[in-house]
Amino acid sequence: MTTNLRGILAPALTAVTDNFQIDPERTIAHYTWLLENGCDGVLVLGTTSEANSFSVPERKRLLERAVEAGIKPEKLLVGTGCCAFADSIELTRHAVQIGCAGVLMLPPFYYKQLSEDGLFRYFASLVERVANDSWKLYLYHIPPIAVIPFSFSLIEKLVTHFPDIVAGIKDSSGDWAHTKELIERFARPGFDVFPGNESTLLAALRLGAAGCIPGTANVYAQLLQTIFSTWQTAEAEGHQSVVSKYRQVILGYPLIPALKAIISRMRMDLAWKNVQPPLSPLPEFQLEVLLEKLTAAGFDWRVSTPEAGALSPGMSV
Amino acid sequence: MTTNLRGILAPALTAVTDNFQIDPERTIAHYTWLLENGCDGVLVLGTTSEANSFSVPERKRLLERAVEAGIKPEKLLVGTGCCAFADSIELTRHAVQIGCAGVLMLPPFYYKQLSEDGLFRYFASLVERVANDSWKLYLYHIPPIAVIPFSFSLIEKLVTHFPDIVAGIKDSSGDWAHTKELIERFARPGFDVFPGNESTLLAALRLGAAGCIPGTANVYAQLLQTIFSTWQTAEAEGHQSVVSKYRQVILGYPLIPALKAIISRMRMDLAWKNVQPPLSPLPEFQLEVLLEKLTAAGFDWRVSTPEAGALSPGMSV
Repeated sequence: MTTNLRGILAPALTAVTDNFQIDPERTIAHYTWLLENGCDGVLVLGTTSEANSFSVPERKRLLERAVEAGIKPEKLLVGTGCCAFADSIELTRHAVQIGCAGVLMLPPFYYKQLSEDGLFRYFASLVERVANDSWKLYLYHIPPIAVIPFSFSLIEKLVTHFPDIVAGIKDSSGDWAHTKELIERFARPGFDVFPGNESTLLAALRLGAAGCIPGTANVYAQLLQTIFSTWQTAEAEGHQSVVSKYRQVILGYPLIPALKAIISRMRMDLAWKNVQPPLSPLPEFQLEVLLEKLTAAGFDWRVSTPEAGALSPGMSV
Repeated sequence: MTTNLRGILAPALTAVTDNFQIDPERTIAHYTWLLENGCDGVLVLGTTSEANSFSVPERKRLLERAVEAGIKPEKLLVGTGCCAFADSIELTRHAVQIGCAGVLMLPPFYYKQLSEDGLFRYFASLVERVANDSWKLYLYHIPPIAVIPFSFSLIEKLVTHFPDIVAGIKDSSGDWAHTKELIERFARPGFDVFPGNESTLLAALRLGAAGCIPGTANVYAQLLQTIFSTWQTAEAEGHQSVVSKYRQVILGYPLIPALKAIISRMRMDLAWKNVQPPLSPLPEFQLEVLLEKLTAAGFDWRVSTPEAGALSPGMSV
């Protein structure tokens, strides 16, 4: 049995070609770089990955190629929650078959004002159809984007009915009061709470969070790892205040285009600026200002990883 | 060249099997019944059809089977807007190849707070990739569900850049002031405005709307057709007030489960109550109350169409 993932997980960016398709070489090289530079695991195909902007076959192929390239599936959480029930089942089965550490599932997010019964029935029917006893389902609470929440009572019901499958939650509410209550009510061995917001990482760890899965881990996972590995010591406070400063700067920009633009500078690779429609790439002049502000805050974005861009698919990493 | 659809269009319900798959026989029989009972056309695979709860292959197969069964493609608008760019292109190309009257496209609805430029780029890139000069794109404005709107300035930009392709809009805002302004600013030969709300059908027609595409057309299209065909006469007012009364009753219930439950009674066919997760079927006791209220309002739901349930796929209709 695989040990559940804990610590710093990056919701990894997905590199996109000029023709709006997934660029597997660049994307997988980025996974490798993340795992070698501060990440305990990688969330592939989540919100920061623009997962819902890609088709089911594209998503499956990327995961297969990542594992073929040598990424250990037990280091991966995979986003598999779609609007279409059949798509969610297909992606979940696929990730489970590949041996991934777990799947992170959005609620079905097209219809609004859903009843709790309807949502429970969706997940219960899905668990039945995935028909496997040894997989881990992480709930993905991100009301600013998916709108549909995982209410405390829905979480309770899912945990009660599927105690061996429902293994945790990512809280991307951006609301510390919510994260705090979530940890206090639910965090326990076998149910891990991962905030999406790293500006409260230290406070969350002290309460019992299992780690963190923030978008910015794509660019400064190593620094987040210093907080995770020192959180019981006095020095953690200092790291936390640095992280909070960086986040404050990045939050002034659309997150995904900004992160991709920073990576494009880190790697000296313009292709990394591409985003999938309907997102728009960060204009060059905005990137200049962002980098100046980050530099002023003390962030050294000039960490280049030339080897990452050159990694071939199929190459053992 | 096909004449653009006008009049009463039903956003047709999709029958679902006990195993959460599309039931093509019942669904296609329903399309036939709608076209023979008051509808000038049918919107297949829209919101009321639970389209986003089905996979791309399921959606394509249903459309193919409908046309094989004898439904004329020039009577069909097809919902093709997905979150994934590749899915929207694939479904749009498919509907265009089949010769459908047009496609009705949601904006990509996962990410929120998108820039107008990002949305325009999405549609411009899509038009380029559909790579066909003779198709009709209808915009689908439904902020209560998709959240992302089609702003007036985005509509203007799309119409200006693609005057031969962008052919109209469905306004499911449920906001009469918005519908009114939309008609006044945009309705013209070559750009048709279809409100989703039939309680203002007559007022909309008087301003220049091309018709209406309300969910309730699944159960009382014939009555809506009497408004459409008499709107320039005095009698239309009476029909409108009856329709508004019925709508008021139905709005007290979750729309899709309620419409399916009414159809299940009309057809004496329990299978029609099925909905796709995350929606929940209307409980039997709620259906009883709903039918009592409709009867009290004067609606004769006892219109049975036994032949509709018995129609075989492949049968010419």
